[in-house]
Amino acid sequence: MYALDQAMSEQDATGFVVFGSSENANTRYLTRFTTTDPVVFFKKAGETATIIVSQMEAERALRESSARVMTRADAGLFEILADEPDRWKATARMIAGQAGTTLLVPSDFPFLLAHELQAFARVIPDRGTIESMRAVKTADEISLITSVQGVTDRAMEHAVNLIRRSKIKSGILYRGTVPLTSEFIRTSMERIFMAHGCHSQDTIVSCGRDTAYPHIRGEGPLSANEPIVIDVFPKSIESGYFSDMTRTVLKGEATPEIMDMYKTVKDAQAYAAGMIRPGITGDELHHSVVRYFNERGYPCNKEGFIHNLGHGVGLEVHELPSLGPGGGILAEGNVITNEPGLYLPGIGGVRLENTGVVTGNGFGCLTHYEEELII
Amino acid sequence: MYALDQAMSEQDATGFVVFGSSENANTRYLTRFTTTDPVVFFKKAGETATIIVSQMEAERALRESSARVMTRADAGLFEILADEPDRWKATARMIAGQAGTTLLVPSDFPFLLAHELQAFARVIPDRGTIESMRAVKTADEISLITSVQGVTDRAMEHAVNLIRRSKIKSGILYRGTVPLTSEFIRTSMERIFMAHGCHSQDTIVSCGRDTAYPHIRGEGPLSANEPIVIDVFPKSIESGYFSDMTRTVLKGEATPEIMDMYKTVKDAQAYAAGMIRPGITGDELHHSVVRYFNERGYPCNKEGFIHNLGHGVGLEVHELPSLGPGGGILAEGNVITNEPGLYLPGIGGVRLENTGVVTGNGFGCLTHYEEELII
Repeated sequence: MYALDQAMSEQDATGFVVFGSSENANTRYLTRFTTTDPVVFFKKAGETATIIVSQMEAERALRESSARVMTRADAGLFEILADEPDRWKATARMIAGQAGTTLLVPSDFPFLLAHELQAFARVIPDRGTIESMRAVKTADEISLITSVQGVTDRAMEHAVNLIRRSKIKSGILYRGTVPLTSEFIRTSMERIFMAHGCHSQDTIVSCGRDTAYPHIRGEGPLSANEPIVIDVFPKSIESGYFSDMTRTVLKGEATPEIMDMYKTVKDAQAYAAGMIRPGITGDELHHSVVRYFNERGYPCNKEGFIHNLGHGVGLEVHELPSLGPGGGILAEGNVITNEPGLYLPGIGGVRLENTGVVTGNGFGCLTHYEEELII
Repeated sequence: MYALDQAMSEQDATGFVVFGSSENANTRYLTRFTTTDPVVFFKKAGETATIIVSQMEAERALRESSARVMTRADAGLFEILADEPDRWKATARMIAGQAGTTLLVPSDFPFLLAHELQAFARVIPDRGTIESMRAVKTADEISLITSVQGVTDRAMEHAVNLIRRSKIKSGILYRGTVPLTSEFIRTSMERIFMAHGCHSQDTIVSCGRDTAYPHIRGEGPLSANEPIVIDVFPKSIESGYFSDMTRTVLKGEATPEIMDMYKTVKDAQAYAAGMIRPGITGDELHHSVVRYFNERGYPCNKEGFIHNLGHGVGLEVHELPSLGPGGGILAEGNVITNEPGLYLPGIGGVRLENTGVVTGNGFGCLTHYEEELII
């Protein structure tokens, strides 16, 4: 919370205010309280952080949150609503009454609430203070992500084994008498996540030409002799922390093009892993891999390597730091992905993604499952 | 989309702009595109809606979204980034270049982006246009919610049967040789949801004194002779639509207090269902139930009936219309919950919740599972 005080002091702010449900990562991070309905979090300079919840949530907030708990009644909302029936205006007046007249709010603070607050206070958009706090993980947070990644390795192994054990008939992979599909692999993985208190959504299991488009999810029967990209980013339901992992596999015979793409991506990943350390920028890492691919004969524009090298992982699957153009300096405790990929329309795509921690002198990879194309 | 044009015309706006990932219900509703990373949606008055996505998402956006698709490159982002490295400022300039100089944005539009847009355009907070569009469901949306509710009825039946078939030993419910726990019921329900492409989170399975606090989730072994509240609000992973349902059950013998609370809540629910129709306000429905409980001898303040009678259900589990103080006029096509409850600390709580459609002349309940306290 020291970073909030520092940001307030730099802007002469009286308070830092956050508004949202725990779906909002900034709110969840600061309140350590999970809720469907929005809560107000505020911190006055040098004082204890407070959350304002409904009467109904107060009991649970006292048990779960590390912040001081106030009900909306304590904060005077119902008196305010008596002469200001508009909910947004009344909430703004309640917040200003508690947090003062110069307020810092995060980038994703709701515009209408900021607009109504401007009747009572100067509202200053904060530029990334909470997001920067979130980027440097504590040992507890690293342990939570490690545990999600452990489950992810198991789910990936299960998915790859389904492909490995399939039988090829007329170029299609079969599980017994039925084609092995993207959907079946996705559901099988989700079953494993669920059994371990995690939830995965939008898992990619794409095959063949679809793999040239990194965000196509994939559907239907899987083919032999074609790359299959499996990209999964589950979240622990209890803690809210994500992990993120991708493997590319192929059952049957790979073309020389795919073989070369795979080897190049794997080498690029090892090359990037060797460079990761505190002090290097995400921009530098990304552009080093761009140059690496260029030197190996691959473009990095509308095809080839067309996405960022990586991103932070935490309460959001994509958070700071960015390992891409403009990406800032890495620090010890960042949890990031290292995920080079190559995509050639008409030929296919390859991506390999590990999640790991920036340690004192390198990259502590949390992803352990093997990288082998031909299975 | 006509409502957006109307809102723009009332404010002399040149464009309506939304920014977010599909986690944001307004974005998902307008774009019909699912994505982890934020996209820009804009609509100029009288023109076709457009989404701006990354190059990587373009292929999938063309397949999935009903809007016109532009890439960030098409929208000039990379030229702008060349002399404006700040991502928020550059995005603001890109948006203003496309959508014009007077922009309406939804209440939850990110404040920092609105702030940066103000360098190029007048930014006006819209007051609920998209939220009001979302409140009136199409036949397709009702069918999607009906299908989630169908799964929810099955999961609830399964949960209640686990309790029904348990054995009582020393006041605790047993499943074979182990105590039947909240956690086991939650996981069993989630298994059913998962098998039907749904996902439930924060399901409440509370027992005994905990039931007096409507948002306590519950944990550990369940007791005989005590109310057990099961409140579940799963979402279809494919469509994003929710349903919402609560039952209260008891294995063994109920005290007269709990028996009376149950009967009163059930009667209040039927009373409310009989009043629901287009034209009545959510405020009127809620206060009618408050009066109903008061007349039956129950308070409605810090204990008794301490929450709203209901809320809209759709891409968010809580959306418009509100069936609570200040709640507006109901319209045909609203999908709402009807969920009276009574909570007495030290004694316990009872809640019954159905989801249904406001029809031309009443309430078309989508929840079919029985309401019986003693099982």
